Amino acid sequence: MSTSVRVLIASHLEPEHVARIAAVDPRIEVLHAPGLLPVPRYEADHHGPPRALSAAELERWRGLLAAAQVSFDFDWYAPSQMPANCPDLRWVQATSSGIGQFVQRTGLDRSEITFTTAGGVHAVPLAEFALTGVLYFVKELPLLAERQAARQWVRYTTRQLAGRRAMVVGLGHVGRKVADVFAAMGVEVWGVARDRDLELASVTRMTDVDGMDALLPEVQAIVLCCPLTPQTQGLLDRRRLRLLPPGAIVVNIARGQVIDEPALIDALADGHLGGASLDVAAAEPLPPESPLWGMRNVLISPHSASTVDRENAALTDIFCDNLGRWLDDRPLRNVYSREKGY
Amino acid sequence: MSTSVRVLIASHLEPEHVARIAAVDPRIEVLHAPGLLPVPRYEADHHGPPRALSAAELERWRGLLAAAQVSFDFDWYAPSQMPANCPDLRWVQATSSGIGQFVQRTGLDRSEITFTTAGGVHAVPLAEFALTGVLYFVKELPLLAERQAARQWVRYTTRQLAGRRAMVVGLGHVGRKVADVFAAMGVEVWGVARDRDLELASVTRMTDVDGMDALLPEVQAIVLCCPLTPQTQGLLDRRRLRLLPPGAIVVNIARGQVIDEPALIDALADGHLGGASLDVAAAEPLPPESPLWGMRNVLISPHSASTVDRENAALTDIFCDNLGRWLDDRPLRNVYSREKGY
Repeated sequence: MSTSVRVLIASHLEPEHVARIAAVDPRIEVLHAPGLLPVPRYEADHHGPPRALSAAELERWRGLLAAAQVSFDFDWYAPSQMPANCPDLRWVQATSSGIGQFVQRTGLDRSEITFTTAGGVHAVPLAEFALTGVLYFVKELPLLAERQAARQWVRYTTRQLAGRRAMVVGLGHVGRKVADVFAAMGVEVWGVARDRDLELASVTRMTDVDGMDALLPEVQAIVLCCPLTPQTQGLLDRRRLRLLPPGAIVVNIARGQVIDEPALIDALADGHLGGASLDVAAAEPLPPESPLWGMRNVLISPHSASTVDRENAALTDIFCDNLGRWLDDRPLRNVYSREKGY
Repeated sequence: MSTSVRVLIASHLEPEHVARIAAVDPRIEVLHAPGLLPVPRYEADHHGPPRALSAAELERWRGLLAAAQVSFDFDWYAPSQMPANCPDLRWVQATSSGIGQFVQRTGLDRSEITFTTAGGVHAVPLAEFALTGVLYFVKELPLLAERQAARQWVRYTTRQLAGRRAMVVGLGHVGRKVADVFAAMGVEVWGVARDRDLELASVTRMTDVDGMDALLPEVQAIVLCCPLTPQTQGLLDRRRLRLLPPGAIVVNIARGQVIDEPALIDALADGHLGGASLDVAAAEPLPPESPLWGMRNVLISPHSASTVDRENAALTDIFCDNLGRWLDDRPLRNVYSREKGY
């Protein structure tokens, strides 16, 4: 590719990261109008509330969309209209790892546009959250908080994470990192993958969804890291929750719909489960009336475990690498598969 | 050694562990009278409240002490009198890792008895607590708890542990395990040891107490794992606390006196420190009036982080190994050094 490529920055990105993108190759022409983009509510927020644009501003934004050949993130204004509004657009680098639902809902999966995901960017912070979520209950931090509030120094016998067994469901970027982190802590990791013959150093036993039921009674924790697909919707249902042994810990860093949430609430309310650390919920934001909020054995994180202060730097790393590949006609990393849905 | 050896079990131990001790060698004669021992308040409690013994029971207990050649734990009834009451006693296997203060206070350090510590038994659970204590603040769990109590789903930018830097002070059994665990999480670990030339795979930079001041401004967390000695008393004093960068996290799994506690309280109250996870306090139990109880950036664990459900199994492992060494006249593991104080 000898001519220039016009790269639209379609969601908030700090100037130093935009400068890095521009510097990848002399052929790159960056289209960046921060004044037309949603204002982030927090660092690395790519989903701020829509910005009210004047007619003239909207016209300018449409002009940028029309010129874009590559886009960093989807159009925040009218994503479903991108195929029509962006006639030259051939590739969107998403800022999220799980875009299946989004591209299906917007119909973008029926376009010719290539999508690459942020897969891998969130693996480290999500694995850290998964570990935190398990340690939180293994070390009985809710109990410690209550005792601290009551100013009571009461010695007790706590538990050790090392030597326990965890099941990791889904072994993509995130699941593999989760498996590595838990294995490093002395946890025996069992995996559930599409390909039950997948071999990973950190996973001592691999199975597929058909084989997981037989193993559920033998794990003390389960970490959900799979994409949301028709196959994984409601995967951890009432029956499977009851196959887990009493006191088991559930961590969900996938999507809320992977768990039957009413069944989860029941299994927490009657004490069958030792705890649940949830970064996602079936409906987000989790409604104020959800019983999950008030449960002592629940840790709620508002779908933020993947959002860390250095996220935009990591996203820019992926995008710059992919831009180099694009310009050299090499295969992109993290290409979204319409067939698999992730 | 061809004759028998009489082994007293001087604190609570489950029958299966006592049986393992008895099975180490045919020459072992176990003296075990559970009805004369303090009743544990929780699993693996070796310091239950003194038991009220009748005159006859006390006589029986004294008979056992007089017969003991080896003892699992110190006499709970009158430890300072052990040299007089146990004329045949040559070795005590302690159930605690840090016994320096205890043997000095009781005068037992002036006896001829050999002491072995539980060093190593607590390394894994203490390292897990240290990691939990750092993740608790890095991942802002106090904030999440407040939002959860208010039923507020507010997305936010959290932080990543990987890529940060931690200083581990004291690189014995516990400190080495702490260094390994943090390094496995992608943390750069700097160490403070007596021997600044000590080389450990998980520690990228080693210094001694004289060199630590220059490094304090560059670490985001400090984990105290050193024994309490005249050299380490008040080690983390007001000046050194202020050398840590704003937002730094302090973890104390050593002894409370290693920190200047009033200075710590000040550095927490004015927000200089991001958090402190304390398994120990200058005075234990921590008095109800201590401001530490009410601080949002403090996690208090009642000197229980080392006490895990499988502790007695691990203690028995050490003792059985040492009994084999004793009978074979090989050097014991974990011998307490009167000179070093640990």
